[in-house]
Amino acid sequence: MARTMKAAVFVEPGRIALDERPIPEVGPLDALLRITTTTICGTDVHILKGEYPVAKGLVVGHEPVGVIEKLGSAVQGYREGQRVVAGAITPSGYSNACLSGDLAQDGAGTAHGWKAIGGWKFGNTIDGCQAEFVRVPDAMANLAPVPDRLTDEEVLMCPDILSTGFAGAESGGIRIGDSVAVFAQGPIGLCATAGARLMGATTILAVDAVPERMAVARRLGADHCIDFRASDPVEEILRLTDGRGVDVAIEALGTQSTFESCLRVLRPGGVLSSLGVYSKDLSIPLGAFAAGLGDHKIVTTLCPGGKERMRRLMGVIASGRADLKPLVTHRYRLDDIEAAYELFAHQRDGVLKVAITP
Amino acid sequence: MARTMKAAVFVEPGRIALDERPIPEVGPLDALLRITTTTICGTDVHILKGEYPVAKGLVVGHEPVGVIEKLGSAVQGYREGQRVVAGAITPSGYSNACLSGDLAQDGAGTAHGWKAIGGWKFGNTIDGCQAEFVRVPDAMANLAPVPDRLTDEEVLMCPDILSTGFAGAESGGIRIGDSVAVFAQGPIGLCATAGARLMGATTILAVDAVPERMAVARRLGADHCIDFRASDPVEEILRLTDGRGVDVAIEALGTQSTFESCLRVLRPGGVLSSLGVYSKDLSIPLGAFAAGLGDHKIVTTLCPGGKERMRRLMGVIASGRADLKPLVTHRYRLDDIEAAYELFAHQRDGVLKVAITP
Amino acid sequence: MARTMKAAVFVEPGRIALDERPIPEVGPLDALLRITTTTICGTDVHILKGEYPVAKGLVVGHEPVGVIEKLGSAVQGYREGQRVVAGAITPSGYSNACLSGDLAQDGAGTAHGWKAIGGWKFGNTIDGCQAEFVRVPDAMANLAPVPDRLTDEEVLMCPDILSTGFAGAESGGIRIGDSVAVFAQGPIGLCATAGARLMGATTILAVDAVPERMAVARRLGADHCIDFRASDPVEEILRLTDGRGVDVAIEALGTQSTFESCLRVLRPGGVLSSLGVYSKDLSIPLGAFAAGLGDHKIVTTLCPGGKERMRRLMGVIASGRADLKPLVTHRYRLDDIEAAYELFAHQRDGVLKVAITP
Amino acid sequence: MARTMKAAVFVEPGRIALDERPIPEVGPLDALLRITTTTICGTDVHILKGEYPVAKGLVVGHEPVGVIEKLGSAVQGYREGQRVVAGAITPSGYSNACLSGDLAQDGAGTAHGWKAIGGWKFGNTIDGCQAEFVRVPDAMANLAPVPDRLTDEEVLMCPDILSTGFAGAESGGIRIGDSVAVFAQGPIGLCATAGARLMGATTILAVDAVPERMAVARRLGADHCIDFRASDPVEEILRLTDGRGVDVAIEALGTQSTFESCLRVLRPGGVLSSLGVYSKDLSIPLGAFAAGLGDHKIVTTLCPGGKERMRRLMGVIASGRADLKPLVTHRYRLDDIEAAYELFAHQRDGVLKVAITP
Repeated sequence: MARTMKAAVFVEPGRIALDERPIPEVGPLDALLRITTTTICGTDVHILKGEYPVAKGLVVGHEPVGVIEKLGSAVQGYREGQRVVAGAITPSGYSNACLSGDLAQDGAGTAHGWKAIGGWKFGNTIDGCQAEFVRVPDAMANLAPVPDRLTDEEVLMCPDILSTGFAGAESGGIRIGDSVAVFAQGPIGLCATAGARLMGATTILAVDAVPERMAVARRLGADHCIDFRASDPVEEILRLTDGRGVDVAIEALGTQSTFESCLRVLRPGGVLSSLGVYSKDLSIPLGAFAAGLGDHKIVTTLCPGGKERMRRLMGVIASGRADLKPLVTHRYRLDDIEAAYELFAHQRDGVLKVAITP
Repeated sequence: MARTMKAAVFVEPGRIALDERPIPEVGPLDALLRITTTTICGTDVHILKGEYPVAKGLVVGHEPVGVIEKLGSAVQGYREGQRVVAGAITPSGYSNACLSGDLAQDGAGTAHGWKAIGGWKFGNTIDGCQAEFVRVPDAMANLAPVPDRLTDEEVLMCPDILSTGFAGAESGGIRIGDSVAVFAQGPIGLCATAGARLMGATTILAVDAVPERMAVARRLGADHCIDFRASDPVEEILRLTDGRGVDVAIEALGTQSTFESCLRVLRPGGVLSSLGVYSKDLSIPLGAFAAGLGDHKIVTTLCPGGKERMRRLMGVIASGRADLKPLVTHRYRLDDIEAAYELFAHQRDGVLKVAITP
Repeated sequence: MARTMKAAVFVEPGRIALDERPIPEVGPLDALLRITTTTICGTDVHILKGEYPVAKGLVVGHEPVGVIEKLGSAVQGYREGQRVVAGAITPSGYSNACLSGDLAQDGAGTAHGWKAIGGWKFGNTIDGCQAEFVRVPDAMANLAPVPDRLTDEEVLMCPDILSTGFAGAESGGIRIGDSVAVFAQGPIGLCATAGARLMGATTILAVDAVPERMAVARRLGADHCIDFRASDPVEEILRLTDGRGVDVAIEALGTQSTFESCLRVLRPGGVLSSLGVYSKDLSIPLGAFAAGLGDHKIVTTLCPGGKERMRRLMGVIASGRADLKPLVTHRYRLDDIEAAYELFAHQRDGVLKVAITP
Repeated sequence: MARTMKAAVFVEPGRIALDERPIPEVGPLDALLRITTTTICGTDVHILKGEYPVAKGLVVGHEPVGVIEKLGSAVQGYREGQRVVAGAITPSGYSNACLSGDLAQDGAGTAHGWKAIGGWKFGNTIDGCQAEFVRVPDAMANLAPVPDRLTDEEVLMCPDILSTGFAGAESGGIRIGDSVAVFAQGPIGLCATAGARLMGATTILAVDAVPERMAVARRLGADHCIDFRASDPVEEILRLTDGRGVDVAIEALGTQSTFESCLRVLRPGGVLSSLGVYSKDLSIPLGAFAAGLGDHKIVTTLCPGGKERMRRLMGVIASGRADLKPLVTHRYRLDDIEAAYELFAHQRDGVLKVAITP
């Protein structure tokens, strides 16, 4: 085996470049994965632009599909050569947060702002998977075998997009017969739309302005697509719900405008399920918040990880209940990842997700 | 029976005055209550100051203890002369919101801002109970007989303060062993402290600056009282929880500062349970909100009403599990209610709650 | 208006007969409904056979679709001539049970056995709706206007079958990706299958032996149909779940055998959601119950009622998410209801549900 | 260090004897604990009597307090010499069950009866802790450091009794103001009583017949103690709840009689929270079960484990909210453990729990 590998590295704000790096060593609880397919996430673009801070020199990427190359000395229950997927968030399983059920906040040691999200390690606090190899920590909690009948591309959305989007629906506590608004139909919003459909929402109102995205939204379950450039989505949603508002509003972009619109369309007692990564302080408008008297709930959710989550999501894919094939719109070799970033960061050519193969 | 009664009326911002008013007529579903004891709420002070808008000429007050004077023609299961209490919030029981379990949002017909809180009627959308008589709508859903062994004053906190304060703890989902911070120890904050204690919180951190309130907080279950004038409560709470933050933070004042502090002391995955009535837009600091990635929940709760809630709360009082006697610090005749407002609005003389008897 | 009407009356065990009865009077909270469509339930057959005791002379039937003929003096928000549906269970909205959220147990005054199910009144404790007219108690909590675009037959399943079947899925707490077994595919089991599908179950295993029912089960969402005459459903389900067992098992028949099989296919930590009406004591096998150490849950659910439930269920029908048309297999005039009972009680001719029109 | 240790070993039904055994080796994820205090559980008596099957030669006991003697090569975050406690149930943290939140069912691979309870290993599937040393598997998920201010005896109830008893209250979903019955006031029932009190139950009805146990029940929160030898507890509980029944009934013995009584005193919609280890099939009486129509729930719970659970329970002890000191009634040296079994199995001398010190 070679001693070095190619990897996409955060050089400085504005620059992610392909570089040569040593192949990672594995500790007793780790596994080394040879990446067969990975992808680029909107969060990677935040990193690229310097909006979300990571260390210079870090290998980026947090959505790995691959083959086990090497297992740590204490890892049991797997074999080398096995095809697996791991979540974007890699809980240890043994931290107090994990044992409390907060799998995504594993390692969160303090309430102080940015120190939350301890469970997100790949491409954040340790080297990520836009590379030929990646070291997976706490392998026994994180490696989920991929069933033979599913291709790499079919499970490629599981590590982040699908897990996050579904979690938006799940944290909203959607019930059979609910009305649900989903603000923004990027990859995560689309998966939230699919999740709302899967949970029994019967009126799903998807907001975006890109025709291709709205077309996919319709395929995944949206009953109405509202083009925010053509009409005011708040008015439109209140009209479509007979003035009642929605039971659950899902924020899938990370802006003040969409956050605020979610509150404005929410019925008293409703849930604002927030998935976006914000880059500024948010403002809660007094009226839409009913001065604090509307029994509203605002719930944020970080992408759930761990092998059991991956197992379940692959089960959904295998069942055919949600067809995510339209999400992979472009394919690149790892060698060309800089071009892939160029396309993806500028949302050119109707791109939704880009499959990257080393 | 006389045809008129004395009642405290909202005249204009800055002025609530005792006036003569016709005794209310009862419709088929209503009951007429002869008030024996009532009290003044912080929300009434908001009304007095013009910060919360109600119609000029409205009888104020929403915390009635009294005796049934007359029953509507369709009301069954009660008898005239029976001593009862009704909640501040009077759900009909038959609205779609009620049948969904949103008892406090009864009648809420739209998501548009102030139209929420449809279940709060007394002294808000219909005449209230700082008067000799009050008409109780939907009597069968709202009148709870008071057990003989409990005095008027003992159940006087049930309609609002106790129901709201406990709801702050309940909506926080407090579990055995939780750490809980309660910001502000006014009457509602004190009841939230008592509620946190009742639900099994084992570290209760109460924040205020008034020595008398902190003393009552300690009696009701606070393990630590933090004087925000003497030290920074955020730092203090993080110190007292070994940097871990609290599982649940209860906001019981209605200001940006306390709202924000709640977020700052919250562990990832924790719940901010908000009880305050805000008067301005709120700001969510990016860092304390972990940019939306901290699995935080913000939950607002309007005072739960209805006769079953009252029955349960009276059961708590009767059990002796929470001793709220220290909350009634002053007593006035209805004739002197203007003086009572004067005292209460300026928080003079260590006042917590004022019992008013017609 | 005539003074008498035709009605199906419980005469004695073994005999339900069409008879002449006075048209009901309405009290202040009631409504009189002119029935346009109704149906027969499996529970009616239990009554017919004397297995579930009701008073002799009672008008049976609890699934009304009709037109408001007359409103009680205190009823507001409706108009005569309006087309409405009411649930099989008619909560008052104002009882302590209702205000606790136990809408189906309205009026339940004691824990002693049969006195539960206080919310089920039609054809149980008051006259039912297999008649030309029916008196609906607590009309404001129970009458749900039918949207013009839905036919009587389309909403005919809402009062009982659909509400009960979905409740089986809901009480099971089904989550996206769950494996669910549904024992028995009669009308309620079929709706439970549809509910499991709507809530995101991705492996739905339906058990029955009637080919027509299994065909409908497949249309409504079953992934596998297991003919219990051809193979042991417990073994088959364990095989199809790789020995893991199901997350949720729904009992939709009311026998020891199906109840017990549910437990046997349940994974540790799973939920047995029971819908059946049992007629004998049940036995819990020690092994399948893991001696009480398996973190199992057994949950029973009585059909949820009230107008908000009806509104939601009609929303599901209108959305096209679940197509229940195949459930109405036969149609009879009220005049021929005895023949309809004859067919339905003996499950002749592939009958699922029978629409009855006066 | 010596190579052998003393240990209590299951020899055959009817006989647990002190024996000499090799000190366990530790694997990479394990820790070796030098036991400083342990205790005997009712389940150990089931093992002794042959009612619960374990392998001959197994070291029994599952309630360890001790000092870390040696850490596995992959274990981080601890140091040798540290005083720790581990739960009776030792979840790995990384199994699919654990990552689903079913910590106690870790390793449960099938729904088939006795194969559940995969998380209970000590003294069940691996050697236990009634010995000088014990090997703790998956140490990082299971070792909880004991605060200096707590003695061994103060935390001795945490591994099983307290965790199980509280879980009975927690699984019951007790809310502020609930009425709760607890059948049997052995160590687990007493902790369930304390848990019900901590969660806000305001009417706690404890059933037993041993005066010493009823006295402790009163100290831990019971409002009424019912001696089942003096009166029928079902009638008594219905009388004390005005015929309403209890919201939650906790079974803490494991017999048909107590299980059945729980159902009989339960209000419609109530929860039977079962903690007992049964040794025979159970029967559900039709009437008490309302033929399946009473919205009843039956929930079983196996003792929750893991270091976070231990941390929380120790927090409860440290807070002084529940004083469990009266539970340790006797003290023995490990050398005399056979005498301790003799006393405990026959419930002589008012024994509740026996502290064993090597």
